[in-house]
Amino acid sequence: MHRYRSHTCGQLGRAAVGSTVRLSGWVHRVRDHGGVLFIDLRDHYGITQVVIDPDSPAFKAAETVRAEWVIRLDGSVKARTPETVNANLATGEIEVYAREIEVLSVARDLPLPVFGEPDYPEDIRLKYRFLDLRRETLHANIVKRTKIVADMRRRMGEAGFTEYTTPILTASSPEGARDFLVPSRIHAGKFFALPQAPQQYKQLLMVAGFDRYFQIAPCFRDEDPRADRLPGEFYQLDLEMSFVTQEDVWATMEPILRGVFESFADGKPVTQSFPRIPYDVAIRKYGSDKPDLRNPIEMQAVTDHFRDSGFKVFARMIADNPKVEIWAIPAKTGGSRAFCDRMNGWAQSQGQPGLGYIFWRSENGALEGAGPLAKNIGPERTEAIRTQLGLGEGDACFFVAGEPDKFYKFAGEARNRVGADLNLTDTERFECCWIVDFPFYEWDEEEKKVEFAHNPFSMPQGGLEALETRDPLTIKAFQYDMVCNGFEIASGSIRNQSPELMVKAFEMVGLSKADVEERFGGMYRAFQYGAPPHGGMAAGIDRIVMLLCGVQNLREITLFPMNQRAEDLLMGAPSEATPKQLRELHLRLNLPSA
Amino acid sequence: MHRYRSHTCGQLGRAAVGSTVRLSGWVHRVRDHGGVLFIDLRDHYGITQVVIDPDSPAFKAAETVRAEWVIRLDGSVKARTPETVNANLATGEIEVYAREIEVLSVARDLPLPVFGEPDYPEDIRLKYRFLDLRRETLHANIVKRTKIVADMRRRMGEAGFTEYTTPILTASSPEGARDFLVPSRIHAGKFFALPQAPQQYKQLLMVAGFDRYFQIAPCFRDEDPRADRLPGEFYQLDLEMSFVTQEDVWATMEPILRGVFESFADGKPVTQSFPRIPYDVAIRKYGSDKPDLRNPIEMQAVTDHFRDSGFKVFARMIADNPKVEIWAIPAKTGGSRAFCDRMNGWAQSQGQPGLGYIFWRSENGALEGAGPLAKNIGPERTEAIRTQLGLGEGDACFFVAGEPDKFYKFAGEARNRVGADLNLTDTERFECCWIVDFPFYEWDEEEKKVEFAHNPFSMPQGGLEALETRDPLTIKAFQYDMVCNGFEIASGSIRNQSPELMVKAFEMVGLSKADVEERFGGMYRAFQYGAPPHGGMAAGIDRIVMLLCGVQNLREITLFPMNQRAEDLLMGAPSEATPKQLRELHLRLNLPSA
Repeated sequence: MHRYRSHTCGQLGRAAVGSTVRLSGWVHRVRDHGGVLFIDLRDHYGITQVVIDPDSPAFKAAETVRAEWVIRLDGSVKARTPETVNANLATGEIEVYAREIEVLSVARDLPLPVFGEPDYPEDIRLKYRFLDLRRETLHANIVKRTKIVADMRRRMGEAGFTEYTTPILTASSPEGARDFLVPSRIHAGKFFALPQAPQQYKQLLMVAGFDRYFQIAPCFRDEDPRADRLPGEFYQLDLEMSFVTQEDVWATMEPILRGVFESFADGKPVTQSFPRIPYDVAIRKYGSDKPDLRNPIEMQAVTDHFRDSGFKVFARMIADNPKVEIWAIPAKTGGSRAFCDRMNGWAQSQGQPGLGYIFWRSENGALEGAGPLAKNIGPERTEAIRTQLGLGEGDACFFVAGEPDKFYKFAGEARNRVGADLNLTDTERFECCWIVDFPFYEWDEEEKKVEFAHNPFSMPQGGLEALETRDPLTIKAFQYDMVCNGFEIASGSIRNQSPELMVKAFEMVGLSKADVEERFGGMYRAFQYGAPPHGGMAAGIDRIVMLLCGVQNLREITLFPMNQRAEDLLMGAPSEATPKQLRELHLRLNLPSA
Repeated sequence: MHRYRSHTCGQLGRAAVGSTVRLSGWVHRVRDHGGVLFIDLRDHYGITQVVIDPDSPAFKAAETVRAEWVIRLDGSVKARTPETVNANLATGEIEVYAREIEVLSVARDLPLPVFGEPDYPEDIRLKYRFLDLRRETLHANIVKRTKIVADMRRRMGEAGFTEYTTPILTASSPEGARDFLVPSRIHAGKFFALPQAPQQYKQLLMVAGFDRYFQIAPCFRDEDPRADRLPGEFYQLDLEMSFVTQEDVWATMEPILRGVFESFADGKPVTQSFPRIPYDVAIRKYGSDKPDLRNPIEMQAVTDHFRDSGFKVFARMIADNPKVEIWAIPAKTGGSRAFCDRMNGWAQSQGQPGLGYIFWRSENGALEGAGPLAKNIGPERTEAIRTQLGLGEGDACFFVAGEPDKFYKFAGEARNRVGADLNLTDTERFECCWIVDFPFYEWDEEEKKVEFAHNPFSMPQGGLEALETRDPLTIKAFQYDMVCNGFEIASGSIRNQSPELMVKAFEMVGLSKADVEERFGGMYRAFQYGAPPHGGMAAGIDRIVMLLCGVQNLREITLFPMNQRAEDLLMGAPSEATPKQLRELHLRLNLPSA
C-alpha cells in the first residue's frame, strides 16, 4: 500500500464498502459521541468521516489529535445507516472505521480557525494565509479561479490563438499609471520597469508576423490600494490579432467570453448576443459607459416638455444655455411619495440640490401626476412625459437637469439606485454588452488641452482625414469595451499602425515626432518596416473571477494578496535591503527625516 | 468578402483551384521572370506564390512593392504545372493570379534582411527584433516553444495538476543567487524582490491544503549574463505534490517529460525508462552529476592494478594517500598512438600534467598493450586492466589519478572528449536519467564549514537521527535531478516539513533558530500548523526548448531577449528614471564618480 494514501478524502463511495483503505489529510474536526470518536478528515479533494471505536487500536492516538493536525490512517470502509447518509458530501454514503492512526504533523493552537469559517481580522488572515486558505469557501474560490483561467486558455487555443510570454523586466510603458521600477545593477543609475500591460510587445509581435497572440499576462501598476484594487500585480487575458477589423475581434471573443461565463455561472443566464451600444448612446441611456443592463431602466431626454414651462428652474436653465438638457429616469413601481422623497434625500446626500420627480396615482378613478413638478408644469405636459416614457399608475419618474457632460454620472448613479431600491435589477443573471465608438480625444480641463480619451495607440475613425479636418473632440476611435453587470470586463481597439497617423495623433495632444520616437521608439520604428492592420483587447481576470465567485473583495479570489498598505504579511515584504545590495544597485536611500 | 483575407497564406491547396481569394501578408520576395512578376506572400501560417501578368490590373502596383511591405491582394487560384509544383510548400500545388493589390504598409530599407536569413550582428538583430522574428527559422523556433509549453500544460492538467500563479512582487528568497529588488513607494526604504523561484509559495500552497500544484513560472535572477544564460528572467515548469514519496514524483513526472520530448523530438528516440543513478555512482561512472548517457563510456576504478606496480608515479600516490584512486576511461576504437597523444595534448591544454594511456594492438598476431604505462606495469597487469574493462584490439584506455573529489570533473570532461572524438556519442537521440541520492551537505572549502549542497528545504535521508548521529558529509537527501544529454533539465526533492528538523538542519550550517525565523518566517510558521509531507521539482523550460530546437543560444528560442550587457535594445531598457520617480521611491542615485 502507498506510504500515505490509497484514496483521497473525496473519493470513497458505496462501491468501496468492505475494502481496506489508507487516507491522509487534515483533522477538520473531532467529535466525541459517547465514547466513539468521529474525525472529519479533509484534503484538497474532500472530506471523509472517520469513526474510531473505543476498542480500536487507533483509539489512543485518536484521543490526542486536534484540529488541523495532519494524520495518516488505515481502516475499513462501511456503509452508513440510511439515516446518517449525508447527500451533501461526495463521500456521504460511507464512513471509515480506523484501526491505525499515524500523526504526520501536529498543529499549535490555531490563531485562526479553519472549521466554521468565522469572520476574522484581515491582518490575521493574511499573516496566516496558509490557514485562511484551508477554509472551504476560499479554497473553493481559488480552485474556481484556476479552472476559469484554464478554461480561458482552452477556449483561446481552440480559437486558433497561441500563448506567447512577453518580458517582465522591460521599459516604462505609457498606460498612464505609475510604473514599478527595478534598478539595474549592471547599468548604474538606470532602471527597468515592470509592464503595466504587454501592449507594446503584443503589437510588436503582430509586426513580427505572428498572428492571434494571447497571454494570461501579469501586469503591474504602482497605484494606491483601494477596496477593489490590490496593490501591485493583477492578471489580464491579453490578446491581439492581425488583419482584422473590430467586428472580427468581437465575433471571435464574444463566444469565448460568453462561454467562460456560462461555464462558471452556476446556472445563471448569460446574455446570448451581446448588444453593441455606442458610447454616446450608453451615456444618454444609462449615464455610464459601464451600464448595468440587469437594470431595465433607460433614461430619455425630456427637455422640450420643460421648455417655457411653469417649472421655472428648468425653464430658465434651458433658455439660458442651449447645451442644457433635462433627462428623465423612469421608475416603474416607484410611484409613492415616500420613495420619491427617499430618492430626493439620497440625491442631497450626494451633494445635489435635490431630485425632481413626478409620480402617478389614481385619484377618484382618474390617473394623476403628483408632486411639485407636475403641479408646476400642469397636466398636459405631465401627461406628455408619461406617454413618452410609457409609465402608468404606481410609477414615478426622476429628473436631472443641466449640461449632460456634467450630470450624466450622477444620473447613472440615480438610475442604479432606483433599479436596486425597487428591485428592478435582476441580480441573478449576467448581462453583457459591447460599448463601441469611444471618443478618441477628450478635453483635459486641468491642463486646458486635448488629451487621449483612452488608448493612444487606437486607430481614429476616419483616419488621417478626420485628424486633419474635424474637431478632435468629435472623432471616434475603433475602441471598445466589454461590460458585464456594470463592470468593465475588457477593453480593446483596432490599433493605429501607420507611422504618419501615429505622429499626427500625438501632435494633437501636443507631442512632437521626437517625443513619439523617444517614448515609443520600438513601436514607432517597427511601424516603418511593414506593419499589418491589427487589433485586440485585454480582459481583467480578477474582475471576471470576482463576478463568477459572487464576491466583492479581491482577497477572496487571490492566493497571496497584499494588505491595503501594500504589505505581504505572510512573507514579510517589502523589507530592508542590505548596504551591499544598495551599493551594488548604485542607490542611496532618501528617507524622510525623523 | 472579408476586409483583409478569405484565406491565410498557408491554406490554399488543389481543392481551391478556380476560386477567387483574398490574401494579406508580407512580401517575402519579388522576382521578375521576363515581365511576369512573382511575389512570395508570407504570413504566420505559410507562403503562397502570387503571379502578376503584365496585363493584370494589379501589375502597376506590383511593380512598386518591395520586400517586407504588407499588401492585400485579390486573385484566382490556379493549379501549378506539374514541373513547377513545390512539394516542400503546403501551398506548393497552386499559385494565385492577382488582379488587385492594395498596399497596407510600406517598409523602409531593411537594416536586416528577412529572406535568406544571412548571419547578422546580434545588436542589429535585437534592435530590429520585429524583423529578426520574421525569419523562418526563428519564427519556427518561437512557435515550437509555445507548442512545447502548451503541451506541458496539457499533460500536467491530465495528470491532475492545477495551475496556480504565485506573487511576483515578493520577499527575498534563499535560492542563493542575487535578487532583483523593487523599491516600495509606500514604505520608504523598503524593497520587494522578484522571485528567484516560487519555492516557498508552492510549499505554502501544500501547507494550505492544495495538492498537485504546477505553474509555468517566471523566475528572476540578477546574475551576470553568460552564453547559456540570459540576463533577467527565465521560465520553469514548477510543480509540487502533497502526500508523496520521491518515487511518486518520478512516476508522475517521467511520463510527462518523456511525452514532451517524444512529441517534439522530430523522431529522435527518447529513453523509455529513465535509469535512476545514485549521485555517487554518476560521479564514479561519468565524472558528472549531469552525465551524457548518449556516450556509452563508463569509467571504472583500476587502483589495485597500479598498486606497487612499476609505474612509480601512480604507485607512489597510492602508497602515500589512502584516498587516492586510479580511474580508467575506456576508449573503444581509440587504439592508436596518434589519438592517444592527441588526448594527452588536450589534457595538458586543460592544465593537467597529461593523460596516461594504454592502447591495444596486434603485434605478430598477438594482442599487445602499448604505450609507456603498459611498459612500466608489465603485460600481466596490462592484461588484467584490459580484461576488467572488456577492451580489445584497436581500443585504448586513459587513466586519471588522485583524490576523486579533485579529479572527477576533469575525468568527466575527458570522457566527453573521448566519446565525441571517437563518434561513440550518438547525437541523434535524447538520453534521460534521474540522478538521485544527492548529498545533503558539502564542505565549503572557502568558509571552512559545512554548507547545504543544494536545496536547504530538502528532507535529509534518515531524518533527525541522521542529523544527530552521522558525519554530515555522508548524509544523503531525498533530492534528485532529471538529466538529458548532459544537461540538468529538472531538479527537485522531498521537502523537510518538520519545524524541528528544519531548525536542526540549519544549525549544522551555523544558522540559529532565530535566523530561520527571520529568513524563512512564513514557511517556518506554516510548518507549525499541520504541514503535509510534500515534494516536487522544477524543470527549466528554456533548456528543454533549446534541446528540442537543437540550438545552442537562448536568443534563438526567446521572443525579446536582452543582449549580453543586459539591455533591451528594442525597447530601450533599462533607462533613466525621472527625479520625480526617484523622489517618490525615496531613492538617490549613488553613481561612480566620473
